[in-house]
Amino acid sequence: MLSLKHIAVSSFNENIAYLHKDCSIYKIDEIKNITKVEIHGGATPVYAFLEIVDDSSLISPDEIGLNNEAFRKINLPQGANVTLSLAGRPPSSGILQRKIGGNILSSSEYSSVIKDIVSGRYSNMDIASFLVASGSFMTSTEVLSLTEALIGDEIIKWDNENIVVDHHCLGGVPGNKTDIIITAIVAAYGLPIPKTAARSLTSCAGVADTFAVLANVEADESKLKKLIKETRGAIIDYNSLPIAYASKIVSSVERSLGVTQQQHIISSILAIKLAAGVTHLVLDIPVGPSSRIKSTNEAMRLRKLVEYVGDMLSIEIDAVITDGSEPIGNGVGAVLEARDVMRILRNKEEAPQDLLEKSLFLAGRILEFDPKLRGGQGYHVAKDILNSGRALEAINRIIYAQGKAPQAQLGHLTRDIISSRAGVVESINNRQINKIGVLAGASQYPGAGLDLLKKVGDTVEAGEALYRVHSVNASDFAFANSFADGDSGYEINSKR
Amino acid sequence: MLSLKHIAVSSFNENIAYLHKDCSIYKIDEIKNITKVEIHGGATPVYAFLEIVDDSSLISPDEIGLNNEAFRKINLPQGANVTLSLAGRPPSSGILQRKIGGNILSSSEYSSVIKDIVSGRYSNMDIASFLVASGSFMTSTEVLSLTEALIGDEIIKWDNENIVVDHHCLGGVPGNKTDIIITAIVAAYGLPIPKTAARSLTSCAGVADTFAVLANVEADESKLKKLIKETRGAIIDYNSLPIAYASKIVSSVERSLGVTQQQHIISSILAIKLAAGVTHLVLDIPVGPSSRIKSTNEAMRLRKLVEYVGDMLSIEIDAVITDGSEPIGNGVGAVLEARDVMRILRNKEEAPQDLLEKSLFLAGRILEFDPKLRGGQGYHVAKDILNSGRALEAINRIIYAQGKAPQAQLGHLTRDIISSRAGVVESINNRQINKIGVLAGASQYPGAGLDLLKKVGDTVEAGEALYRVHSVNASDFAFANSFADGDSGYEINSKR
Repeated sequence: MLSLKHIAVSSFNENIAYLHKDCSIYKIDEIKNITKVEIHGGATPVYAFLEIVDDSSLISPDEIGLNNEAFRKINLPQGANVTLSLAGRPPSSGILQRKIGGNILSSSEYSSVIKDIVSGRYSNMDIASFLVASGSFMTSTEVLSLTEALIGDEIIKWDNENIVVDHHCLGGVPGNKTDIIITAIVAAYGLPIPKTAARSLTSCAGVADTFAVLANVEADESKLKKLIKETRGAIIDYNSLPIAYASKIVSSVERSLGVTQQQHIISSILAIKLAAGVTHLVLDIPVGPSSRIKSTNEAMRLRKLVEYVGDMLSIEIDAVITDGSEPIGNGVGAVLEARDVMRILRNKEEAPQDLLEKSLFLAGRILEFDPKLRGGQGYHVAKDILNSGRALEAINRIIYAQGKAPQAQLGHLTRDIISSRAGVVESINNRQINKIGVLAGASQYPGAGLDLLKKVGDTVEAGEALYRVHSVNASDFAFANSFADGDSGYEINSKR
Repeated sequence: MLSLKHIAVSSFNENIAYLHKDCSIYKIDEIKNITKVEIHGGATPVYAFLEIVDDSSLISPDEIGLNNEAFRKINLPQGANVTLSLAGRPPSSGILQRKIGGNILSSSEYSSVIKDIVSGRYSNMDIASFLVASGSFMTSTEVLSLTEALIGDEIIKWDNENIVVDHHCLGGVPGNKTDIIITAIVAAYGLPIPKTAARSLTSCAGVADTFAVLANVEADESKLKKLIKETRGAIIDYNSLPIAYASKIVSSVERSLGVTQQQHIISSILAIKLAAGVTHLVLDIPVGPSSRIKSTNEAMRLRKLVEYVGDMLSIEIDAVITDGSEPIGNGVGAVLEARDVMRILRNKEEAPQDLLEKSLFLAGRILEFDPKLRGGQGYHVAKDILNSGRALEAINRIIYAQGKAPQAQLGHLTRDIISSRAGVVESINNRQINKIGVLAGASQYPGAGLDLLKKVGDTVEAGEALYRVHSVNASDFAFANSFADGDSGYEINSKR
């Protein structure tokens, strides 16, 4: 028996157990490698990585320390007696190894893997291995199996609604925050849209990051239900909702790896939407040479895959292939994107037309889920809602209902990236723009990012600014500028 | 500036930095995910994972704590002033992502990845992703590139030797500790054989585990040189030698993942041999339906691959395909295997003939690296050395020179696994035997393992024992027995 001690250390989802090197019970000299242990004494065993302590003031030889994550899970008071055993490999480890070996897994095998992930039996390293192995090859049936496994047991029920809609974009295009505009329009129309949004994985800002500039994006299930009842729309960081727990773990590992794979994104998005009780989804698949999805063929394959999985899981999906050849809107980074969105909702002249048009188009597709709306009318209804100011009223209601955010500051370190020659903007490289924005600090600070002053087709004079870099701190600013000086991401065609 | 504090926690190769949640310098609320930081102040920056502390007695808001691994690397006294920055992704992260995406990497790309791994810029999670991604597909040229990158800068030079030999087995066959017998014979003959051995990765016992039952297997470079000068042979855990550092990190992650991939094993083995200054290598490639290598075709492909890499790196390799259809020898597990080895070296009647013959065969191949030896004579010379007792003398000299190990105990919990029917042993499943042995505790305790009392072709009576399980602790014993009761790994053909 070891005595339980809480070590107030937070390790980002990894459970850690601390043992003294002269532990009275467990012989440490037999432990030569990364070792998982099982701690017994609570309601269920807690799995943790072992770290060895050589400081009795931290852990004495008859104690076991648990970090915040593990201590919360074991749910026992300090001083409680616990026992320890070496954790065998998780039950699904053979399945993981089969996937690493390139095999096709069954539905029950996916559910075993996800069950072990949720119960904490996989380390982040195991999860990363699973993601890399499955990302390299999955059949459509496997994507379906993974999606089902990721949904989990908690599903939000919308008892008084026939249709619950949402919109999601597969990403890879900087700017492009149609979601907030769409939510405003759809909510103003009256369809319930509990938009589950994500924080940035590898981009400058996720929808949740951008809307967090305007409002509090956290909600539990009862708050979400209240929001939808009152305002018909909400934009919530899905991490704050008690759903699709496995998806969150997987995303956290992907974010840390800096890797996102198509099949996992699809499984994860659909699982979250299904867990959120969404019945009708518009999925935006942007295609462009520097976008995540490079060709129409690839987009078409993804559309078929999404339709297959959606049909099998009884969610109506309208997968729309859109132009992702350049950034959408002018702002890249949360504060600048929120500015674009509000300009559109306020019908301002400076509003970026590409973002405006795309939002109306997609909002129209969602509105047409309503059986009462005549086919082909969606776009016009959406436009009317926006122009009449009803979308602005809706977003303001949503912002106040979710809780208005304090005013966010745009990064005060700025520099214009200049065109060295006159001509026409031939192309803008999404990946390069995203990278410069991330270097400028956008994924870390809402106020950092890029303000695109020229878009494809615009005329540029030599010495004129292409975009403005905004940073919050000096080292990010220097990185972004030196990177932009190497390659601005813009191609200027000098033949006018 | 933060004040440096040593937190005496050992985390198995992962560098950890601890910051207080109210850190006076760095705003913790901006850190939402697994975060790597760069700590400046020492000779080179140290990379570490950030963990957040909510206990001022552990870390105060103006301190930064480093665990053993990171504190050793920064090489500064406690109280030193250090600064902190967010670590960007490692320089090779784009390369890692390209490999995850299924691309072929160049030689310089492999060397960038390995450089980042050695400098501590990869987390174990990153390393696992690299291993899984590269394990799924590598060209021969990529295997060569990885091997070169793994060799590292430290290479042991043998100034007075023309030929330095070694032997290695690709594994997957329980028992099979030819290495110790071969080393004894070759050393007795007089060729220098600095056998670099490994601890078990996924098997019941590695060669280093088995020889550790007899002798101290740790040595630094000068001790190894002294051993070879004095006794011509040595069997050393390569982890204790200051070579092929990247290989060790990779192996440690593989061990923890429970995954070993063919191309990595080959790269890793060749890198270690080259770093150890070996000029001539016999590589044993065992083939069998339940072995790691399942078919002669697969073995032939591996042989060609090994020959290609060896030729390019100027190491003479004799890759020998052998029978891996059943365990070799009777003992599975370090103490039992050491018993078999010593029975052979002592020319005992109970010596397992398969292990004896295989060892003579392979030792003969090594002896024939000696230009003075007439082709085809190796086996006979090896047999003479063994029969005359000179191999026993050699191993005893080696054991005493390395340092005799204290007497190891065979696990005292024993149970015989019984055949339910009479017949002839048709086959023994290597993987099942290995798994039962591992469950019995063999990879953890030298004294645990299986003693195979029957081999393929042996006659069995109903009720007669097939093998004996040895365990050190009761839970392992119960696991192994229940698993063996489900499937003993033996197939008995009742038609005599």
